Amino acid sequence: MTASIPATAPDTAKLLAHLAAQPVLADRLGGSPAQWSIHEIGDGNVNLVFAVRGPAGAVCVKQAPPFVRVAGPKWPLTPQRVLFEHRALTEHRRHAPLYVPEPLHVDAGEHLLAVEYLEGHTVLRGGLVAGARYPHFAEQAARYLAHTLFFTSDLALPAGSKRELAALFETNTAMCQIMENMVFTEIFLPHPRNRWTSPELDKDVHALRQDTEAKIAVSRLKSRYLSSRDALLHGDLHTGSIMVSASSIAVIDQEFACYGPMGFDLGSLLAHLLIAYFAAGAHGGDRSAQQDWLLSTVEQIWGGFRTHFTDLWHTHATGDAYPPALFTGTAQAALETERQRYLDNLFTDTVGFCGAEIIRRVIGFARPADFTTITDPARRATAERRALALARTLLTAPTSHRTAADLTTTAQDS
Amino acid sequence: MTASIPATAPDTAKLLAHLAAQPVLADRLGGSPAQWSIHEIGDGNVNLVFAVRGPAGAVCVKQAPPFVRVAGPKWPLTPQRVLFEHRALTEHRRHAPLYVPEPLHVDAGEHLLAVEYLEGHTVLRGGLVAGARYPHFAEQAARYLAHTLFFTSDLALPAGSKRELAALFETNTAMCQIMENMVFTEIFLPHPRNRWTSPELDKDVHALRQDTEAKIAVSRLKSRYLSSRDALLHGDLHTGSIMVSASSIAVIDQEFACYGPMGFDLGSLLAHLLIAYFAAGAHGGDRSAQQDWLLSTVEQIWGGFRTHFTDLWHTHATGDAYPPALFTGTAQAALETERQRYLDNLFTDTVGFCGAEIIRRVIGFARPADFTTITDPARRATAERRALALARTLLTAPTSHRTAADLTTTAQDS
Repeated sequence: MTASIPATAPDTAKLLAHLAAQPVLADRLGGSPAQWSIHEIGDGNVNLVFAVRGPAGAVCVKQAPPFVRVAGPKWPLTPQRVLFEHRALTEHRRHAPLYVPEPLHVDAGEHLLAVEYLEGHTVLRGGLVAGARYPHFAEQAARYLAHTLFFTSDLALPAGSKRELAALFETNTAMCQIMENMVFTEIFLPHPRNRWTSPELDKDVHALRQDTEAKIAVSRLKSRYLSSRDALLHGDLHTGSIMVSASSIAVIDQEFACYGPMGFDLGSLLAHLLIAYFAAGAHGGDRSAQQDWLLSTVEQIWGGFRTHFTDLWHTHATGDAYPPALFTGTAQAALETERQRYLDNLFTDTVGFCGAEIIRRVIGFARPADFTTITDPARRATAERRALALARTLLTAPTSHRTAADLTTTAQDS
Repeated sequence: MTASIPATAPDTAKLLAHLAAQPVLADRLGGSPAQWSIHEIGDGNVNLVFAVRGPAGAVCVKQAPPFVRVAGPKWPLTPQRVLFEHRALTEHRRHAPLYVPEPLHVDAGEHLLAVEYLEGHTVLRGGLVAGARYPHFAEQAARYLAHTLFFTSDLALPAGSKRELAALFETNTAMCQIMENMVFTEIFLPHPRNRWTSPELDKDVHALRQDTEAKIAVSRLKSRYLSSRDALLHGDLHTGSIMVSASSIAVIDQEFACYGPMGFDLGSLLAHLLIAYFAAGAHGGDRSAQQDWLLSTVEQIWGGFRTHFTDLWHTHATGDAYPPALFTGTAQAALETERQRYLDNLFTDTVGFCGAEIIRRVIGFARPADFTTITDPARRATAERRALALARTLLTAPTSHRTAADLTTTAQDS
């Protein structure tokens, strides 16, 4: 959704004046501010996002109002979130520069963040809803995940550096609280923010509120989200947080970044690909090729992640965990077995978090366009019910899924 | 060991002048500084500790030199550690006031910390070496552990408060690094700081360096120490960090405090009681009653902890983990099952950390008086070898110990 806002409106005029005062932005845009255009391009739930274009180039500017954008002032939210996004962009770009846009400017007082404009990119979710496939996506996403998670973990960072980085993100409390409430808690209660396809899914929602096994499982995951400091997470890695072109991806919207369990990012991305898979079957027309591609992408992301993460552990084990000095000679084989055990456990986490994310996207506050654009409620409910069935299985029986193929098989059978 | 230092020595004169300038301390001591006496009473490895007495009362003053006390300036160490100790004392005393002394004064510039003087208390380790038993100790230690760990966890603290508290301790990097190196790494390498009963244990030490299974297990625990933020730990909870009288205990020396896995504190305390058990058998004379008491204390500490922790979870679940709103009515039984599962997992962690702590106290830098006061090397080596055998079993097969009785049975059989 692109809505043009006249550059003469007071807020955008002030915004342009602010940008003009930043040499790095003024140079990139070129010419004089009178020659710049500004368009609102955001379609997220939380912020205002503008494309600003000048004779020499463009920048993307995000403004964080002191509330959740789609809810308005009745749901206040710290505008400091742009600072955490800037920190996470900087840190993640250091490790995955091909897949993270360049931050150009942050201003805490104005609550705005400017990043490079991603020419020729669209939001992945929009492309998926329209039926597109992206042949390079799985490999790029796998590398992005392996690099950002490995290089911010105890496997790569000395403990002192990691503690310092973790402390920087410990105060992103307000944003983490949204996840703590929305992913792990509210959807199992009669909360006023919950929305679902009604009346078709009323019984399913009611059943979930009585589902003690699922509530135990989701609380266990919440406990992991609260107490694990495994790596610096994106924190909200869905298909609306990824820009794609035919050849590249750029991961955006790091404002939920915090130290947490790696499976949270991995599970979230797989969840949204599986949501797209279920939705594709209900959009009408033959989407079977896209559906095959989506399931194959799920398998390839995990497989690629596993390969790259293992490779990085072989080549860049500069952290304090599993000190290489302890595992020389014949002990190297045991360390390799331990690496695979570590990744098996991470997959179990991933499967659980994937289930939790799917559920909250079917009956929570932030339902994705994949589902909401299905105009026929009966078809929508069928797709959502299949997603819920898969999610419940993943949540309550994560260890019965040992491989990504197990996961996609369960998805097909759901 | 109590060594009197003349109050006219330059450092103590300066120290007394500093204390005199603090009304809270001057009032507590009473009279004039000329009436005050100062004695060095510390027997720890790291700091200088003084008892200062005046006509009205006494205070205990800890001074943190910019190096490890027993090693001297060749091993520098941040004198900021008194700040972390003060923070931890303050936080833990809030939750376990009966078992944590009152902090009275901290001065970052002078690197000193003053706490209430514990009249009539001695260091637990000294009492154990002398053959003493403390009938109330197990119950008091269990309550101390349950309260400090529960009330700083996600079960009691809202996520925002817990993140803030965790961030405060994330910069205690230098002290955590000592644990990361000494407990989990150096003892498995030919490190110059390692010491052991030689030549008697030379073969055992050599075998440990080749013990891949133990190195994998200890590295898995190190990874948990580095990435878990379960509760605010004491961080170095051995029998030298606990003062006892016939009726009470006081836990001191919180300078290693950090957020970490609960099993680290629990396992460390149990390790030192088991070390005392093995040492008691080698001190000469009939120590069987003390040995029985030590094993029973191990069982009672875990049993009491488990009971008190479960009770607190029933009555004070004010944190964000396992939200009580999700578990009403019949779901309460499932939550109770989950609580017991949580505690079973915590016991497995405890057993592993217990094993790691025992090993580093037999062949590492900081060997405890329990062993070093055994004058006959052959008897000492026998006790230490039994401790090592237990430790290896605990480290590599923690899940085969389901109860504290399993643990003490293995200790007796080692």
